[in-house]
Amino acid sequence: MLVHRLIERKRDGGRLDAGEWRTLVMQYTAGAVTDYQMSAFLMACFLRGLDRTETSALTDAMLNSGSRFDLASLGVPRVDKHSIGGVGDKVSIVLAPLVASLGIAVPMVSGRGLGHTGGTLDKLESIPGMRTNLSLAEARAQIEDLGCALLGQTDEIAPADRKLYALRDATSTVESIPLIASSIMSKKLAEDLTGLVIDIKRGSGAFLTSFEQEVALANEMIHLGEGHGCPVVAVVTAMDRPLGRACGHALEVEEAITALKGEGPADLMEVTLALGAEMLVLARVASDASAARTDLNAALSSGKALARFRKVVERQGGDPAVLDDTSRLPQAPARETYAARRAGFVSRVEPRAIGRGIIELGGGRKVMSDEIDAAVGFVIHVKPGDRVEAGQPLAVIHARDDAGIEAGRSVLDAAITIADEAEPPLKLVSHRISRNGVETL
Amino acid sequence: MLVHRLIERKRDGGRLDAGEWRTLVMQYTAGAVTDYQMSAFLMACFLRGLDRTETSALTDAMLNSGSRFDLASLGVPRVDKHSIGGVGDKVSIVLAPLVASLGIAVPMVSGRGLGHTGGTLDKLESIPGMRTNLSLAEARAQIEDLGCALLGQTDEIAPADRKLYALRDATSTVESIPLIASSIMSKKLAEDLTGLVIDIKRGSGAFLTSFEQEVALANEMIHLGEGHGCPVVAVVTAMDRPLGRACGHALEVEEAITALKGEGPADLMEVTLALGAEMLVLARVASDASAARTDLNAALSSGKALARFRKVVERQGGDPAVLDDTSRLPQAPARETYAARRAGFVSRVEPRAIGRGIIELGGGRKVMSDEIDAAVGFVIHVKPGDRVEAGQPLAVIHARDDAGIEAGRSVLDAAITIADEAEPPLKLVSHRISRNGVETL
Repeated sequence: MLVHRLIERKRDGGRLDAGEWRTLVMQYTAGAVTDYQMSAFLMACFLRGLDRTETSALTDAMLNSGSRFDLASLGVPRVDKHSIGGVGDKVSIVLAPLVASLGIAVPMVSGRGLGHTGGTLDKLESIPGMRTNLSLAEARAQIEDLGCALLGQTDEIAPADRKLYALRDATSTVESIPLIASSIMSKKLAEDLTGLVIDIKRGSGAFLTSFEQEVALANEMIHLGEGHGCPVVAVVTAMDRPLGRACGHALEVEEAITALKGEGPADLMEVTLALGAEMLVLARVASDASAARTDLNAALSSGKALARFRKVVERQGGDPAVLDDTSRLPQAPARETYAARRAGFVSRVEPRAIGRGIIELGGGRKVMSDEIDAAVGFVIHVKPGDRVEAGQPLAVIHARDDAGIEAGRSVLDAAITIADEAEPPLKLVSHRISRNGVETL
Repeated sequence: MLVHRLIERKRDGGRLDAGEWRTLVMQYTAGAVTDYQMSAFLMACFLRGLDRTETSALTDAMLNSGSRFDLASLGVPRVDKHSIGGVGDKVSIVLAPLVASLGIAVPMVSGRGLGHTGGTLDKLESIPGMRTNLSLAEARAQIEDLGCALLGQTDEIAPADRKLYALRDATSTVESIPLIASSIMSKKLAEDLTGLVIDIKRGSGAFLTSFEQEVALANEMIHLGEGHGCPVVAVVTAMDRPLGRACGHALEVEEAITALKGEGPADLMEVTLALGAEMLVLARVASDASAARTDLNAALSSGKALARFRKVVERQGGDPAVLDDTSRLPQAPARETYAARRAGFVSRVEPRAIGRGIIELGGGRKVMSDEIDAAVGFVIHVKPGDRVEAGQPLAVIHARDDAGIEAGRSVLDAAITIADEAEPPLKLVSHRISRNGVETL
């Protein structure tokens, strides 16, 4: 009977107190509240909203449904980075070993592909032998030794969130600011962090569709972090085009390795440094962003960051030789260069079309049980604003077979627009949001 | 994937076209759309609303999920009455044989108890031997012979509504005007009617809580009827006190038999005649309400109505001797007169408290599998506005045992209020709503 009263109250615009949130989440996790009751409740939450106190209570309830990392005893700062979805976003793979090489513990818990975006876990698993299903105990030991672990959300971390998220995904109740914020923070707070940097994507390829929503989400997470002694800083980055050149699992790992050598595409390096600098400042190992960048660049050029990644790959069962010879990563049997159909300016490289295109080529899941083809994808050499000639190579399609090449061609036809003139794209790193407000960069 | 798009669209305030409603309802009935997806969708419908075209499409989709009566070939008018819940409401039991005795086919499909209200089916089953689970074919044959059948919603009639209604009941999405209207009308239109009279209850014991909602519901049903060639008239009647004196299954059947002899309590007779007159006029067997009342009164006083009920009971396996000797109905072993605790005016006889009290005494279901004790209940002799003396008998409690008598006493203490003065109760039959608008009576 309790659940009926709570559904009705939220339906009619009322609020639940902390004890009610705790009971509801506990009963749902235990199976006493059914999926169909919870999905009606979630839709009421989606349409009626949650206030700050409710969002915090929901976060706590999900956080407390599982275990925590307990990393405080390591005696080092613990900082993580979380990104709100993107295409071509391999920043985590670069940032975790890079920042860990500078004395910060990075317990990086990542996800699988979601919607049109690829997942860091899926990307890492394209390295032959690489395991990401570490237990909390394994991950903790690895962080103690190497400063970083790259793992998936285990059943130990916020199991209530896991169950609720799957239900939201099936019932179109994902895009709610308080539900997104509490879902992310329940997992991140389980990492026992001293700081968290959020990469909020902006533009046509982002999950959220307005800058107001992005600021609201950042503020919600900043507020939740404050309440748990974990300062949060959000950086707004452009997702009106893919990040870097490579889009596809193994292709992105290859590009991440290049970036760890300091030689990645300019936009990927810039976003990595901007987020890394925030992590170093939050960890108090650098006095300001400029000093942090100097340290990060030094770790890249000295090979320290790459060496750390090598150890992490080795420890997680992966083949470390891929760092020296990326042809050991899965390779697509069919490749074709895609050329400009006309001269002009590149006006759009649409991330959603590219992301969905990778799924179409076999590099993503349509349902959760699908196997991923890690080799397929696109390497796109142009960015919006570039001037191109007719016949100029713009991209390379990596596919399983001729049919894949043909599909890839259609994807790029739709994704890349060449026009007589081009609007300037969004600023790559445009805003910084902290407890002090929104700062335009 | 379709269902995701439809949930999203309704969530965001959009609308579904007729084909989409049909597909959604079909896929849900077939199990291809899950309960948790449908309940999220229903909550979005509850909060965003449905427009008239959508309500009509949903009604059609549910109607077409099952079979219809196909009564047109009988060559007589087919008119039914439906009531939006009430306590002490035994009108259907009187009205069906009464109207049938005047040459109108009445395919009366009734429900079980819902919330604090009793169900006509449960009441009828207190007659020893009486079967209400008639198939459509059985019911049709009986209507051909006797003009009337008293049956429950079989799996043949609107199975989609049956499944959706159970889900709404479990997920707090019942009280939505378009969802209520489409649920009722999908079943009523399956009866192949030439007219329908709706008894809309008003006051503290009614499901809807404002007159605006009641008018909106009536208009929604009138509109749905118009679209299917079935004129609908709604009559608004008072439910700020129970209807008649008897409240409880067998007790109400006994009172219905008295009413079929023309000797029922004044308020029960008045509501029965008001609704019956609308049925006769809709069926065009009476030229106006006044002529209709003359016919109805004649059928009561001549014994024609009672004789028809006797045949119906017999045909459905019931013991017709109960009509002559109501002590053959289930009798409560414990009875006690309840007396006024003070002198004054009866200011309230609260229907919800009485309805819930019957359930407490064993005369209702807390869960669907509960057995009903048909004998228990209350016979209440006073109405709001009546002047009473201290110690004057107000009611008789019918219970299973002494504990039941005690519980019944508490129920009446809470339900019946005596004060120094009393506000006038609601007008018994207050409004008539038709395609021409709302008429105050």
